[in-house]
Amino acid sequence: MEKTITVLPGDGIGPEVTQAAVKVLQAIAHRFNHTFNLQYALIGGAAIDAKENPLPQETIDACSQSDAILLGAVGGPKWDQNPSHLRPEKGLLAIRKHFGLYANIRPVKAIPALLDASPLKKEVAKDVDLVIVRELTGGLYFAEPRKKTNDYALDTLVYTRKEIERIVDTAFQIARSRRGKLASVDKANVLDSSKLWREIVEEKKQGYPDVEVEHMLVDSTAMKLITKPGAFDVIVTENMFGDILSDEASVITGSLGMLPSASTREDGFGLYEPVHGSAPDIAGQNKANPAATILSVAMMLREAFQMETEAAAVEEAVFNVLNDGNLTGDLQVEGKRALSTTEWTAKVLEELD
Amino acid sequence: MEKTITVLPGDGIGPEVTQAAVKVLQAIAHRFNHTFNLQYALIGGAAIDAKENPLPQETIDACSQSDAILLGAVGGPKWDQNPSHLRPEKGLLAIRKHFGLYANIRPVKAIPALLDASPLKKEVAKDVDLVIVRELTGGLYFAEPRKKTNDYALDTLVYTRKEIERIVDTAFQIARSRRGKLASVDKANVLDSSKLWREIVEEKKQGYPDVEVEHMLVDSTAMKLITKPGAFDVIVTENMFGDILSDEASVITGSLGMLPSASTREDGFGLYEPVHGSAPDIAGQNKANPAATILSVAMMLREAFQMETEAAAVEEAVFNVLNDGNLTGDLQVEGKRALSTTEWTAKVLEELD
Ligand SMILES: CC(C)[C@H](C(=O)O)[C@@H](O)C(=O)O
Ligand SMILES: CC(C)[C@H](C(=O)O)[C@@H](O)C(=O)O
Repeated sequence: MEKTITVLPGDGIGPEVTQAAVKVLQAIAHRFNHTFNLQYALIGGAAIDAKENPLPQETIDACSQSDAILLGAVGGPKWDQNPSHLRPEKGLLAIRKHFGLYANIRPVKAIPALLDASPLKKEVAKDVDLVIVRELTGGLYFAEPRKKTNDYALDTLVYTRKEIERIVDTAFQIARSRRGKLASVDKANVLDSSKLWREIVEEKKQGYPDVEVEHMLVDSTAMKLITKPGAFDVIVTENMFGDILSDEASVITGSLGMLPSASTREDGFGLYEPVHGSAPDIAGQNKANPAATILSVAMMLREAFQMETEAAAVEEAVFNVLNDGNLTGDLQVEGKRALSTTEWTAKVLEELD
Repeated sequence: MEKTITVLPGDGIGPEVTQAAVKVLQAIAHRFNHTFNLQYALIGGAAIDAKENPLPQETIDACSQSDAILLGAVGGPKWDQNPSHLRPEKGLLAIRKHFGLYANIRPVKAIPALLDASPLKKEVAKDVDLVIVRELTGGLYFAEPRKKTNDYALDTLVYTRKEIERIVDTAFQIARSRRGKLASVDKANVLDSSKLWREIVEEKKQGYPDVEVEHMLVDSTAMKLITKPGAFDVIVTENMFGDILSDEASVITGSLGMLPSASTREDGFGLYEPVHGSAPDIAGQNKANPAATILSVAMMLREAFQMETEAAAVEEAVFNVLNDGNLTGDLQVEGKRALSTTEWTAKVLEELD
């Protein structure tokens, strides 16, 4: 098969981890006889520096002409004092909105070899295997009106039925393909938007009799993600709650550096990126853990290109390398040498050879 | 001194834990020669059953004529299907708003004797000693317009300068009386209300040169509360973020059943209540842990009545009882007998004798 992928390295460790992931894509192309046309474009701080725009038109055009997008990370102290239209995150928000990428999917799974790095007790973290499905283009992030004076500020939380229906459908379908359990998270005891959300989940569940649904409040969910994270299968929630809960969930297994994500829409077009940020403190030092970006490539192969065998090959390679005790600095156990980004990537490439 | 306290037992385990706390108040009155006039009133489900109103006028009147309010907990499955104006939580929201109790203060401190009950590794949880200062009468909880049709729903997040200034001042003052570190939590990369929040914190910090301020995003805070909770001193944030983060923080030390809270305003008038909920599953079984409510009484003595010695006596009694290995069922270590609510309270009363 022939596919075109736009690579957006971004800022901080973004270039290093996308470079590692690109090598993995090339190895997959070679082994499975595909052609991946890679085109590079700018986003975030790198785009601000070059074009005074965190998401330049050229980048939008490149993405439009491709089958999937691979993103590294955006942001860094260099741009922290910029006015808000010249902030790296604006590039990320704008690309999500421009392409209507409303479904953010973040799987979090405990990796036995890494549980020592978890802040949770082993017996609490060990059974974690959940997916957070976050609505990504609605709610407080994008709704109008918004206003700020010196004395007063206002944001608006709006959801339409259609926006809720499609993300809830996505979540039900994912739950059905897994253990059949869906936790729908809202704040229906306070918010009108949550009341509509809960009603729609109740309606939709008729169409998925094989999925067991539970409504949970966002505050109790924030607790249960720590006390009993292993009890969750699929969690679906609106944009802001999803931002908070998915970051919370990302650290419970101690493997933030391992977590991939996809941001997609109905037709399957999507943006794939690691959950971690741009880590400016270690940028350019060949220290970053490229696993999350490499596993994002596996998600891309599976979800965007329906290449299940290829995706599984990437995942197997990553887990084999980890299980052999090869760890980058972020996961390092005392007394063992940390592998560099390129050394660790080379091990994965060997596995794929 | 003579003080009038309105006791609102509420629902579920509320009556049992407030009864325990009232015994402690009486013991303090006896030992330190105070007079505490106790008046009881209805709130939540109990008030809905008796008066079809989660916060009846009689309750408001009783509270208005008192020096402090002691609340148990509200809510339970019995009222879960009620229309929203007849839900127990409405009583809680309404009493906060009616009395302008804008500052919700929740201290979370690791108790060495209880760390086994924490989902976090001992070395992560052991140094936790933080206070969450949550804005309680603004933001998405109360702002207009709000609207819900079958196709669309809207909530509004509004903050005025005055609302932000007073809660930020409260937090700076608390930080100054502790380790002098304040984390102000917002989502300034997305929300206009957070931008105003951040500006005001920047202005206010000029007046507290002894306090070190850090701005943090709500998503990274949700992570750091798990990975490095010991790094926090005081956290200040808006209403909804505070709801989520304070519940998250409440489970990290494994002692949810121990956590008190105060909801107060400028003149010091306030409502004191345990952080835990009404636990309908164990209600009426003499199993509930009354410690959080008893420690809320300690907060009341200290903050509302300036009775520092009395407050310290209550806290000492509670910790002595715990350190002697007396635990209620929620904290029970395998193989040891759990004390009942009344047995455990009796131990505290003995200490206070
Ligand atoms: C950078 C920021 C705007 C973004 C968000 O809040 O969505 C990030 O936190 C994320 O979760 O992808
Ligand atoms: C019961 C509910 C409305 C309330 C809130 O969200 O404020 C509760 O969760 C709390 O934190 O006191």
